[in-house]
Amino acid sequence: MSYTAVELIETKRDGGTLSADSIEWLIRSYTDGSVTDYQMSAMAMAIYFKGMDADELSTWTRAMLVSGDVLDFSDIKAPKVDKHSTGGVGDKISIPLAPLVASCGVVVPMISGRSLGHTGGTLDKLETIPGFTTDLDRVTFRRQLGSHGLVLAGQSDTLAPADKKLYSLRDATGTVPSIPLIASSIMSKKLAEGLNGLVLDVKTGLGAQMKALEDSKHLAEIMVGIGNANRVRTVALITDMSQPLGMEVGNANEIRESISVLKGEGPPDVIALTMALGEVMLELAGVDGGRDLLQSKIDSGEALRKLKEVAVAQDGDPTVIDDPSLLPQGRYEASLPSPRSGYVQVCDALRIGTVVTRLGAGRVSMGDNIDPGVGVTVHKKVGDIVAAGDNLATVVHNDSRLWGEQREALFAAWTVGDERVAPPQLIVDRIE
Amino acid sequence: MSYTAVELIETKRDGGTLSADSIEWLIRSYTDGSVTDYQMSAMAMAIYFKGMDADELSTWTRAMLVSGDVLDFSDIKAPKVDKHSTGGVGDKISIPLAPLVASCGVVVPMISGRSLGHTGGTLDKLETIPGFTTDLDRVTFRRQLGSHGLVLAGQSDTLAPADKKLYSLRDATGTVPSIPLIASSIMSKKLAEGLNGLVLDVKTGLGAQMKALEDSKHLAEIMVGIGNANRVRTVALITDMSQPLGMEVGNANEIRESISVLKGEGPPDVIALTMALGEVMLELAGVDGGRDLLQSKIDSGEALRKLKEVAVAQDGDPTVIDDPSLLPQGRYEASLPSPRSGYVQVCDALRIGTVVTRLGAGRVSMGDNIDPGVGVTVHKKVGDIVAAGDNLATVVHNDSRLWGEQREALFAAWTVGDERVAPPQLIVDRIE
Repeated sequence: MSYTAVELIETKRDGGTLSADSIEWLIRSYTDGSVTDYQMSAMAMAIYFKGMDADELSTWTRAMLVSGDVLDFSDIKAPKVDKHSTGGVGDKISIPLAPLVASCGVVVPMISGRSLGHTGGTLDKLETIPGFTTDLDRVTFRRQLGSHGLVLAGQSDTLAPADKKLYSLRDATGTVPSIPLIASSIMSKKLAEGLNGLVLDVKTGLGAQMKALEDSKHLAEIMVGIGNANRVRTVALITDMSQPLGMEVGNANEIRESISVLKGEGPPDVIALTMALGEVMLELAGVDGGRDLLQSKIDSGEALRKLKEVAVAQDGDPTVIDDPSLLPQGRYEASLPSPRSGYVQVCDALRIGTVVTRLGAGRVSMGDNIDPGVGVTVHKKVGDIVAAGDNLATVVHNDSRLWGEQREALFAAWTVGDERVAPPQLIVDRIE
Repeated sequence: MSYTAVELIETKRDGGTLSADSIEWLIRSYTDGSVTDYQMSAMAMAIYFKGMDADELSTWTRAMLVSGDVLDFSDIKAPKVDKHSTGGVGDKISIPLAPLVASCGVVVPMISGRSLGHTGGTLDKLETIPGFTTDLDRVTFRRQLGSHGLVLAGQSDTLAPADKKLYSLRDATGTVPSIPLIASSIMSKKLAEGLNGLVLDVKTGLGAQMKALEDSKHLAEIMVGIGNANRVRTVALITDMSQPLGMEVGNANEIRESISVLKGEGPPDVIALTMALGEVMLELAGVDGGRDLLQSKIDSGEALRKLKEVAVAQDGDPTVIDDPSLLPQGRYEASLPSPRSGYVQVCDALRIGTVVTRLGAGRVSMGDNIDPGVGVTVHKKVGDIVAAGDNLATVVHNDSRLWGEQREALFAAWTVGDERVAPPQLIVDRIE
């Protein structure tokens, strides 16, 4: 059947349901350009207001998925599992997690993104390892997955191109925070990876895309539903993003912290979340052993060796993994002494992420260059006791004027008060 | 101040109010292309859902108005008054009205539109007069207005270009039926005409853009508010568009009916509405005499002579006005015998307008050619008594296959039943 974009926009605008056939037509026509950007942005805004039901969402996701290549790794016998995070500040979990789980015999075809807005991107972090390339063609991707059981790459242009196009459009038209559009965007890419299992880390709180727990749960439920309906076993953890994860925020900073986790060190929250997500990945892969197996792979050094092995396979210099002091580092260092004593009540992930982005570690818009050596080390987090003058954070940067402009904004991320408060619960819920 | 389109879209999406400064920036940037069509369509959809308050609407209208030329006829001493109709089926009122009022000494700089969808366009009707040109440059427009007191022209590209651009975009993105966007579109053009007074004919019913009386009144109130706030005395009549106006629908058909009105003939509803709108125009111009003056200009032949005078000034052949049988006419004629006797309950303007458009008299999309000789003469209207076999309508067309396809759809416009019904009230309300 043939449709016009206008009639479909009107149907959604008036609260109607789009037929499967019409959604397939729309996504196909948008991909080939016969439905224009200005029609699709009006549709996205109508969806923002009117939503999509489960059937519409499932068709929409599949239509974006089949707009491009669907990877088929069925000839690789081992179970294939990936993780996706909705993004947060200091969220470097993919970097220790992927080699850790791969060292347990699970195949991990991990496709990650770049920094945008206040959150960092796994690809930008990995590229602070000199030579490391994340732009792999299909043949190389497939070959490396077979030989190393792990790939850490970016999304190729041929994977879910409809999503790629729609995501840029949403970013420019105020239609990003629509739960059905977020869910279908994430799942269209993940379902194209040829997975057996998928764990979703859905963030909640100040520094997350979904600030309200209710919205985070709703997003998680919808994505788990889409995954399972498409025969990919999917589990979501809802995790805290009110304050940064770990101590390090910034590209080289986060690679350093990731390496320390694989060495059995690193901050407790990063370790705890890596282990929790790793356990789910083993479970979805049908691999026994759980946390003990994961711990043994850290203790034996196999997890760290897997990271080095993959760095080498992707043209990276493994010596920085042995000696992270060789990673890029900003020329200037500044500290942030607490003006008063008390307990940290708030350590605002959004504010910290925004400052780090503005100092050059992230992108305000796609196409911006990033500064790999810029970052913040967070010394005091929610619940910590602080004396006046104690250092709240250490900043490394390359531009004193810029730092001067951002200093107050970074200060504003902390609230120190007399009242004793408990640290937030890291893992809030599990949805499957 | 500087803005980004995304933040303004987000503000409106979330139900906020846009500052005057930000609206001016938006319309200016949209006109020069630095705000894209896909951003403006998302904004239009957000406005569809969230509306605009009186201040936003007034700024939005003014910003579109000043996006182009604002005509200044202050050197023409006589009062300048125009009429605008929201459009309907068989609505040819401008054609007898403008010369009638101009013959009373009121200057009428009338800028009209073309057919789109199920409604006709004054320009298309005028162009069935051989040679008649509606595309006048500013100098010619100004000169003719001074010498003849009447211009019947199309909108130049330099008049409210922001509106021109936005209107095409709305048409393609399902954002036409938004009362604030309709109101600001109409008023931005009318306020650019340098008027002292404006009468609005806001249609209501099946064949109108606003089908519900409440919506029609709301639109009228908003437009009257914008007009008066901009020191153009504005009055709106709410008039019936449940059935076609007059007997004739189609371009040459409607010119014929218009000429008959200026000859003191024509159907009572067309005469009544012409007189009612004419009275308001005289009132707004401060010209005494009312209906008696209008009638005297018809009786003396001055009104008809004014139409001929203007046709000649705009390169049209005045002989067709003396002898309307010279107007283009479809080759084939068909009739529509009533299948039963009774009273006409419904004579659906929307269905009749749609059939006439499909027979070639109107445009489905901008750029389509129109067939000037195609039309329908409506013989039976709501409340009329009908015997089985009586002719409901006479169709003139140029394509028997097309007519065969449309015949049932035209039949469906009439409902004949046993119950006696009163004809609808023509003039429902006056808003000022």
